[in-house]
Amino acid sequence: MCELLAMSANTPTDLCFSFTGLTRRGGDTGPHADGWGIAFYEGRGVRVFHEPAASASSRIAEVVQTHPIKSEAAVCHIRQANVGGVSLENTHPFIRELWGRYWTFAHNGQIEGFEARAGVYQPVGNTDSEHIFCDLLNRLRSEVPRTAPETTLLEAIVAAAEEYAQLGVFNLLLSNGDWLLTFCSTRMVAITRRAPFGPARLKDADVTVDFESQTTPRDIVSVIATEPLTSDERWDHYRPGEWRLWRKGEVVSQGLVGVPDLAHPAPG
Amino acid sequence: MCELLAMSANTPTDLCFSFTGLTRRGGDTGPHADGWGIAFYEGRGVRVFHEPAASASSRIAEVVQTHPIKSEAAVCHIRQANVGGVSLENTHPFIRELWGRYWTFAHNGQIEGFEARAGVYQPVGNTDSEHIFCDLLNRLRSEVPRTAPETTLLEAIVAAAEEYAQLGVFNLLLSNGDWLLTFCSTRMVAITRRAPFGPARLKDADVTVDFESQTTPRDIVSVIATEPLTSDERWDHYRPGEWRLWRKGEVVSQGLVGVPDLAHPAPG
Repeated sequence: MCELLAMSANTPTDLCFSFTGLTRRGGDTGPHADGWGIAFYEGRGVRVFHEPAASASSRIAEVVQTHPIKSEAAVCHIRQANVGGVSLENTHPFIRELWGRYWTFAHNGQIEGFEARAGVYQPVGNTDSEHIFCDLLNRLRSEVPRTAPETTLLEAIVAAAEEYAQLGVFNLLLSNGDWLLTFCSTRMVAITRRAPFGPARLKDADVTVDFESQTTPRDIVSVIATEPLTSDERWDHYRPGEWRLWRKGEVVSQGLVGVPDLAHPAPG
Repeated sequence: MCELLAMSANTPTDLCFSFTGLTRRGGDTGPHADGWGIAFYEGRGVRVFHEPAASASSRIAEVVQTHPIKSEAAVCHIRQANVGGVSLENTHPFIRELWGRYWTFAHNGQIEGFEARAGVYQPVGNTDSEHIFCDLLNRLRSEVPRTAPETTLLEAIVAAAEEYAQLGVFNLLLSNGDWLLTFCSTRMVAITRRAPFGPARLKDADVTVDFESQTTPRDIVSVIATEPLTSDERWDHYRPGEWRLWRKGEVVSQGLVGVPDLAHPAPG
């Protein structure tokens, strides 16, 4: 099983605490030892780290845990390979430019034998996930005018996600830096932290943070993940088929579509 | 002035030594303090680090200096901004996917007011360099069939580079992971290291390396840069208008085109 992690915030915020918990699951408290990657948006730019190795013992992951990189949108993935070998080109999140923005994509699940429709975007590696990402972007480029209102774009993305989810497990994180779209096929949780802030304790490491000392009363920071990362907070569980669009730490649009009942754990 | 650095090698090789020298010029021995970036290819994948800040005092650049990341092709840039603000999206090298490969682009120079022709690829930031990169890829996509022989592709790239160089200073590093194209408009140097290997001393830091202890007799490693990085080796100077295509540490194709005489230092 892979695991996903994302953040949406109304002020540039680091992800050190959550990332510290998640990285433990990459070869220590969890089996996702085949790679990790993270994308931090800063304005229109994006800063990425990818490694086709266990995050729990990575020197670069350690730097990302301890060196605060502040962002309003971040997308992260730790990998236990199923489709596609363990290699750098198969490590999520995947990135492409569309309409002058960097889009990032991370996927938990598996859609066997999926191949991207022909188009501008082509996979570099051989994962089902990157094929789906390219397929989605090719579809958006051909179906949605660049100048379309955001609701039209969102409808097209959700319609595509609904179709992919009919074919297999498809838990999705997708961002263009401005917004973060999250789609739950089988498993996804979220938490929104705002004033009054309190302390929180990681499930996977003996680390506690006091958010009050790191925030201002106006901050709103949401974290989305495959499984809760803390043991003393209440995480909100998505329903299968539920999607939420996040911007500046809050849900700005949401909905529910029909998906098959795939109660078995997502393998990808 | 910006500075460029690239490597081509016939075996996965780290760039720690050269990168250590170059980073000093990013705010310590040189004025290029507005950002740095590096792309390391590993197979078809590419690992990138970007920071819109001085490399000489960067914790992440320090990790890249001391943690060996092994690659057969790498492209690096340190920036002193002229066109485009200091921001992550304006930090080289720029990356796009074309024909199922990640292409990376770094530029030293300035071409005032350049705008990419309309096409699939659009700049995310507002540097002349990213505009030129998008223009080049749009041009290749429209003029060169994907199945064209490599010589046809190379001719198209060199013809485009020659045109850009008529408009301003255009020293270029371009790679798709398989090959590295270098184009000299005003300033570029190279060195190829092979057995028997000897020691070398950086110009910008009190660091000496004995390459013999780090290599096998079959290794061939070439480094291309704006200015020589070592004080005790003989670097080969490109002529203005000279281009060289590198693969596995060696020049596999080269030529010379006409460029304007721009003897003043490249500002970008």
